[in-house]
Amino acid sequence: MMNHITVLGAGSWGTALATLLASKGLAVNLWARDAKFCAEIARDRENPRYLPGIKIPQEIKICADLPQALKKHQMIVLSVPSQSVREIAKAIKPYLSPETMIVNTAKGFETETLLRLSQVLCEELPTYCGEQIGVLSGPSHAEEVAVRLPTAVVVAANHQDVAETIQDTFMTPFFRVYTNMDLVGVEIAGALKNIIALGTGISDGLGYGDNTKAAMITRGLAEITRLGLILGAEAQTFAGLAGIGDLVVTCTSMHSRNRRAGIQIGQGHPIDQVLSKMGMVVEGVSTTRAAHALARKVGVSMPITEETYQVLFEGKEPVEAVTSLMSRCKTHEGEKEMLG
Amino acid sequence: MMNHITVLGAGSWGTALATLLASKGLAVNLWARDAKFCAEIARDRENPRYLPGIKIPQEIKICADLPQALKKHQMIVLSVPSQSVREIAKAIKPYLSPETMIVNTAKGFETETLLRLSQVLCEELPTYCGEQIGVLSGPSHAEEVAVRLPTAVVVAANHQDVAETIQDTFMTPFFRVYTNMDLVGVEIAGALKNIIALGTGISDGLGYGDNTKAAMITRGLAEITRLGLILGAEAQTFAGLAGIGDLVVTCTSMHSRNRRAGIQIGQGHPIDQVLSKMGMVVEGVSTTRAAHALARKVGVSMPITEETYQVLFEGKEPVEAVTSLMSRCKTHEGEKEMLG
Repeated sequence: MMNHITVLGAGSWGTALATLLASKGLAVNLWARDAKFCAEIARDRENPRYLPGIKIPQEIKICADLPQALKKHQMIVLSVPSQSVREIAKAIKPYLSPETMIVNTAKGFETETLLRLSQVLCEELPTYCGEQIGVLSGPSHAEEVAVRLPTAVVVAANHQDVAETIQDTFMTPFFRVYTNMDLVGVEIAGALKNIIALGTGISDGLGYGDNTKAAMITRGLAEITRLGLILGAEAQTFAGLAGIGDLVVTCTSMHSRNRRAGIQIGQGHPIDQVLSKMGMVVEGVSTTRAAHALARKVGVSMPITEETYQVLFEGKEPVEAVTSLMSRCKTHEGEKEMLG
Repeated sequence: MMNHITVLGAGSWGTALATLLASKGLAVNLWARDAKFCAEIARDRENPRYLPGIKIPQEIKICADLPQALKKHQMIVLSVPSQSVREIAKAIKPYLSPETMIVNTAKGFETETLLRLSQVLCEELPTYCGEQIGVLSGPSHAEEVAVRLPTAVVVAANHQDVAETIQDTFMTPFFRVYTNMDLVGVEIAGALKNIIALGTGISDGLGYGDNTKAAMITRGLAEITRLGLILGAEAQTFAGLAGIGDLVVTCTSMHSRNRRAGIQIGQGHPIDQVLSKMGMVVEGVSTTRAAHALARKVGVSMPITEETYQVLFEGKEPVEAVTSLMSRCKTHEGEKEMLG
């Protein structure tokens, strides 16, 4: 177990994880870029913007000064938007020690390079590449973890002992952490489910039902798995917590901002307005762009990703997108056309 | 396509399917045991008890007389509770023609024999065994099919041409029917998901969150698949509409009476009262008993089934059942103890 943890990013997930770690008696620093915001959280002991109603223990040190936040750290928890991971990696590099362990909790791809986020970290922090980097994923809405509702997640790393150290650090009776050695699969599943959440949200927003959504989740899992396998993931991961578990919670819970954004788009609100009003990054949007490019690059059929892409970036009417998904012509289950 | 269809059972699903078939211009007879109930539906052209608010077309002939309902039929759609399938099979036997095709839509096992329902039909109607029997399954709440929300289902049979005939008969632009040759898997997945719906309902009723439910769905799929594989099903079926699709919709939709029953049990209402008030058969209860026996017989670990069984039949406190599910000790994903 690591005793000194620095959490980078005071969004809902970073705040919930900092609180969880502090409840175990660990020394936790919570960093956010915005000094004014940090001062407010530190004063009020609450994060009203991202995790309202949850008391942040006095023991957590909150600051906007990176060197200070990283003093004495053994483990860094990254909870920043996926497109900021590279920038943060560059910023923290001077302050890392040879023992630093990094746990990424962001879910996405770097849009420009189409890299997984652990690959981005490896590029920027080659000393740590493949050795001391782990990923935390699975069905875990911050709002529920913050009030200690039973939650099960996975931590993936290339080395079993790294995964187990992270597991020990985060594990509580209500927050069960399972290790998984398929880092590629866990990252891909966690990123891609946000696309399906946007897509099923659009369907919900159009007034379609639970039957429609269940069909889309089923086919969504199939297309996510298809891309994952080609990129080197293991099939079993997609049947586990980081796969179907996270997909289901993201497509059905009102805590999911990707789903909520999809619902509003399906209801006909202008996309730009929906995204700017959300107040938090809707990761599924950049992930849709990245997955769309990846699917073309490796030649995989991803119909839900394709339709979501067309709605988000090419002005396709949501109702046309869902209709075309639900009326594909092949009719034997398991055929490529059906599953994808 | 078959032109003369008799639907046996005027519950919500039988009524919705009769309405769907009639909308295609097919000649549909709808039968229910209760003559008074039949007369009311026939007069009011609505089934207020099981499918309120949906107009039943004049073209559908509704009666409680079995020989009359089966006159001129080419296809029989069975929509009766699973424990009534054998009795109905005996009753219809004298009226079948050599060309009769039978489509079962009930989901469960026969509790006394632990047989799948197509096996029960084969025992009673050996002439049709393996030849003219199909099963319709997948995420399809009657309430949504009745208002034509886009729905995708599977039909399974031992012969491709039988599956395709059934597919042609039911297919509409909003009701997509996919064929699947894994009859065993489709039946097992459809039956067992009701157990997981009861279990996750109990968790919801206790006030646990979407994270908890997603973890239980993930592990539920694993234990259903495990039993299915030993009984001869194909793994792929559990990743499809009849598997994860139906599981998700049953565990998350308020249309699911198994889930609703679980919620009330989790809230502390006496089980007998919950089941009698439901007004419809809660299939998951008898299925839990059957699956519990099957799992012991073949030696498969099914923790959610086990805990649900103990709550339903052995007076275990719901909170203890969910707690013991969420605190199992193995911690590497994929290990039997975790998935089970």
